[in-house]
Amino acid sequence: MSFKVDLNSDIGESFGAYKLGMDEEIVKYISSANIACGFHAGDPLVMDRTVMHCSNNGVAVGAHPGFPDLIGFGRRNLDASFDEVKAYVIYQIGALKAFAEARGLRLQHVKAHGALYNMAAVDEKIALAIAEAIAAVDSRLICVGMAGTAMERAAEKVGLKFACEVFADRNLNPDGTLVSRKLPGAMIHDEEVACARVLKMIKEGVVEAVDGTLLKVRVDTICVHGDNPKAVEFAKKLKMTLEENSVEVLPMGRFL
Amino acid sequence: MSFKVDLNSDIGESFGAYKLGMDEEIVKYISSANIACGFHAGDPLVMDRTVMHCSNNGVAVGAHPGFPDLIGFGRRNLDASFDEVKAYVIYQIGALKAFAEARGLRLQHVKAHGALYNMAAVDEKIALAIAEAIAAVDSRLICVGMAGTAMERAAEKVGLKFACEVFADRNLNPDGTLVSRKLPGAMIHDEEVACARVLKMIKEGVVEAVDGTLLKVRVDTICVHGDNPKAVEFAKKLKMTLEENSVEVLPMGRFL
Amino acid sequence: MSFKVDLNSDIGESFGAYKLGMDEEIVKYISSANIACGFHAGDPLVMDRTVMHCSNNGVAVGAHPGFPDLIGFGRRNLDASFDEVKAYVIYQIGALKAFAEARGLRLQHVKAHGALYNMAAVDEKIALAIAEAIAAVDSRLICVGMAGTAMERAAEKVGLKFACEVFADRNLNPDGTLVSRKLPGAMIHDEEVACARVLKMIKEGVVEAVDGTLLKVRVDTICVHGDNPKAVEFAKKLKMTLEENSVEVLPMGRFL
Amino acid sequence: MSFKVDLNSDIGESFGAYKLGMDEEIVKYISSANIACGFHAGDPLVMDRTVMHCSNNGVAVGAHPGFPDLIGFGRRNLDASFDEVKAYVIYQIGALKAFAEARGLRLQHVKAHGALYNMAAVDEKIALAIAEAIAAVDSRLICVGMAGTAMERAAEKVGLKFACEVFADRNLNPDGTLVSRKLPGAMIHDEEVACARVLKMIKEGVVEAVDGTLLKVRVDTICVHGDNPKAVEFAKKLKMTLEENSVEVLPMGRFL
Repeated sequence: MSFKVDLNSDIGESFGAYKLGMDEEIVKYISSANIACGFHAGDPLVMDRTVMHCSNNGVAVGAHPGFPDLIGFGRRNLDASFDEVKAYVIYQIGALKAFAEARGLRLQHVKAHGALYNMAAVDEKIALAIAEAIAAVDSRLICVGMAGTAMERAAEKVGLKFACEVFADRNLNPDGTLVSRKLPGAMIHDEEVACARVLKMIKEGVVEAVDGTLLKVRVDTICVHGDNPKAVEFAKKLKMTLEENSVEVLPMGRFL
Repeated sequence: MSFKVDLNSDIGESFGAYKLGMDEEIVKYISSANIACGFHAGDPLVMDRTVMHCSNNGVAVGAHPGFPDLIGFGRRNLDASFDEVKAYVIYQIGALKAFAEARGLRLQHVKAHGALYNMAAVDEKIALAIAEAIAAVDSRLICVGMAGTAMERAAEKVGLKFACEVFADRNLNPDGTLVSRKLPGAMIHDEEVACARVLKMIKEGVVEAVDGTLLKVRVDTICVHGDNPKAVEFAKKLKMTLEENSVEVLPMGRFL
Repeated sequence: MSFKVDLNSDIGESFGAYKLGMDEEIVKYISSANIACGFHAGDPLVMDRTVMHCSNNGVAVGAHPGFPDLIGFGRRNLDASFDEVKAYVIYQIGALKAFAEARGLRLQHVKAHGALYNMAAVDEKIALAIAEAIAAVDSRLICVGMAGTAMERAAEKVGLKFACEVFADRNLNPDGTLVSRKLPGAMIHDEEVACARVLKMIKEGVVEAVDGTLLKVRVDTICVHGDNPKAVEFAKKLKMTLEENSVEVLPMGRFL
Repeated sequence: MSFKVDLNSDIGESFGAYKLGMDEEIVKYISSANIACGFHAGDPLVMDRTVMHCSNNGVAVGAHPGFPDLIGFGRRNLDASFDEVKAYVIYQIGALKAFAEARGLRLQHVKAHGALYNMAAVDEKIALAIAEAIAAVDSRLICVGMAGTAMERAAEKVGLKFACEVFADRNLNPDGTLVSRKLPGAMIHDEEVACARVLKMIKEGVVEAVDGTLLKVRVDTICVHGDNPKAVEFAKKLKMTLEENSVEVLPMGRFL
């Protein structure tokens, strides 16, 4: 029997003279890329080159829309209206889609960035604005988010496929939410532990919360980072570990 | 025998709290709209609403990409590279295309804005960057520009349909270029003269330059303005004059 | 016996090609101007011209800093940190101060704009960041805000003079806060009522809340609007009414 | 006998999540800093921290205004008007001045950035706009630029002190202009050669152009870079070499 999973990473976050992330490296180990669309990071030239790197490495491309807050990298909550969020997301998906199609690729998915991602997990209005935006552009696009969130419910409501995302290096509360980065136990620093944990999620469908509670979990795509050499090394190791354990790593669009 | 021509106008130039142009009025009299895409004017919400106004009035939509210079309204020459211009144009077309498709419309054309339009008329590099960008997104898109310019040559080079644009209210030099706005004879203020002139261009294929020289001219689309009540009145009058003289006013995509 | 009060208005909110507000008109009737500083509205050229209009009309100038959110006109809450808000405010005050001093004027006051103003009324952290920023640039600057708010407490804490602002056209809740614009009774539309109300606040130090409760109130400066002809007419009428009733209208810096 | 010279570097070019330059390192070896002001690079928080680093290291601070072109890092010529350039420069100087004064420092100088610097070297209009802006804010500010340029003439015209800048690592044409970076001989890669060359400029007032021509040169300040470890090492070496050869390195404001 074979398992399948997607590995995703946020890339294309450079801007003008500013370089961020080891995009050329991380694309070797992931199957899907969430590409910044110029609002919180990325610029048109960066977007085009990022799509090219993905194309050259067989990585599926997705849009990674965020708030129009370059100075805050899209990480600050903004009290935007439903119509504003929907229009922001349509705009950004459209821009990235053009670069993808210009290089012969089809856009695979959309994953909100930063504060927009976090707000969409708990705010039904924001989540629905995102889901409606995705469906408005192309109803075949996959919506990526955490399981059990407002984002998942909104995707279901508008009829979008939803990919459940987990974070390889983050601990969970007993209710399935991420342990806040402000708390000591937020991150999983041991790579072996992180890999074993991911394998268990995929093969057994369960994961242990910080207090030991066993949670049921569905994993479609695993988020890894590419902003430093250690992160890239971990992504490489995780991919190898998965493949050595009969888990096929491939774009979510191929199995969802 | 019947003549056909398109009437276009630059709309969707509002931004956030800033309102510019009488979009809801001018869309009643034009057949094609050049919609700002967020770089020199326009924002995602404005773009969406502008597409809606066009849809409600049977006006074909086109992208109106400009330089990333909101503070200068895209009217200032910027020394951008070929790759930058190409990426800027792909980005902006893609963004607008998403709003158009979200409302069931197909993007019809692309017309560069302001300084980008002017530079593309004389700079082969800029013109080619724009033409390649348009073709990269969708080779069926019509490229709009002045006849005899670098823009026309670039469109031809990459295999795009080209729509020859004339300005109803501008005088021409003997070489076919616009009389500079800095000179006294730049504008045609008499509406009767302007209408007669346009009719002659369409029916006889000729126009008189400021010095009396008779120039051959091809007219596919006529640019009118919608930024003040007088301009809207003129557009209305021009449309009526054309139709009363057996010239059908319809989107360029219907006859090119 | 003579009463003194300041009339202030938010001006300089145009941006590039976008014109907003009847600045040349409203400056005839106010004594202090809150000038946008380029983050939520205004641009360097607009700032310079606005300072010039103030200088020509004997209007004292103040900075009107907002969130870096041009697309939202600074009206949307942004989850910025203490350090970010403080730096944003220092930056904007400094920029406007340079234009004022370049025209031989001394900056008189600072009043936060939109969401920043509203957040500073209730959020001690935001309020303190603003107060510290003002004091860091020039401790003689007057901080403008509503009485009884976190902004007033923060100004006091850092040793700034504080000017109590009231709104001529807004109703109050029994606790002194503004009636939400979402509720029917938010605005006072009758100009006679508004004028009488302001006079009573100044001369008797009391105002009636929506439920009839009599509230004590201190009035240093009254906010009027200049964004439409009716608003300008009201400002003119209010100024006349005040002067006819022995209330001197002059810049807050002259009596605080 | 003792010689004096200033070492300057462009710093504070980070923006939001984007880090650029080794500011904490380079401030150890320079005497004056040109700090980006938020238009082409830098943000309010970065500006404040950069001023702090300068303060901690006894480095004099100056404003480094550029075009409003973050995406192009201020390196692209922009066809801005006299009034626009003047207002942009006043704005940026004012913003930085506020951060400097908030930390008890006095702004020492202003040096235009990138395309603005290059345009000001040859365009009298741009140069005058910059000079007038500087004088408008504070006529004691030193204007930094290359000798023999329009910038120097404009500074003289408005009565500003002018600091002649040389580049430690750039070759010169026989007319004193920099060899274009597009040509092979633009840069001086040998550190020994560069140091000896700078010493000769300071002590003998001459420098050899690429063709061997001996040019007279006045050196007030030498531009070094801090964007990579090698550049920082060179700055350190240059400073040591100067001091070992009886050249005192100190802020230009101390000897001009």
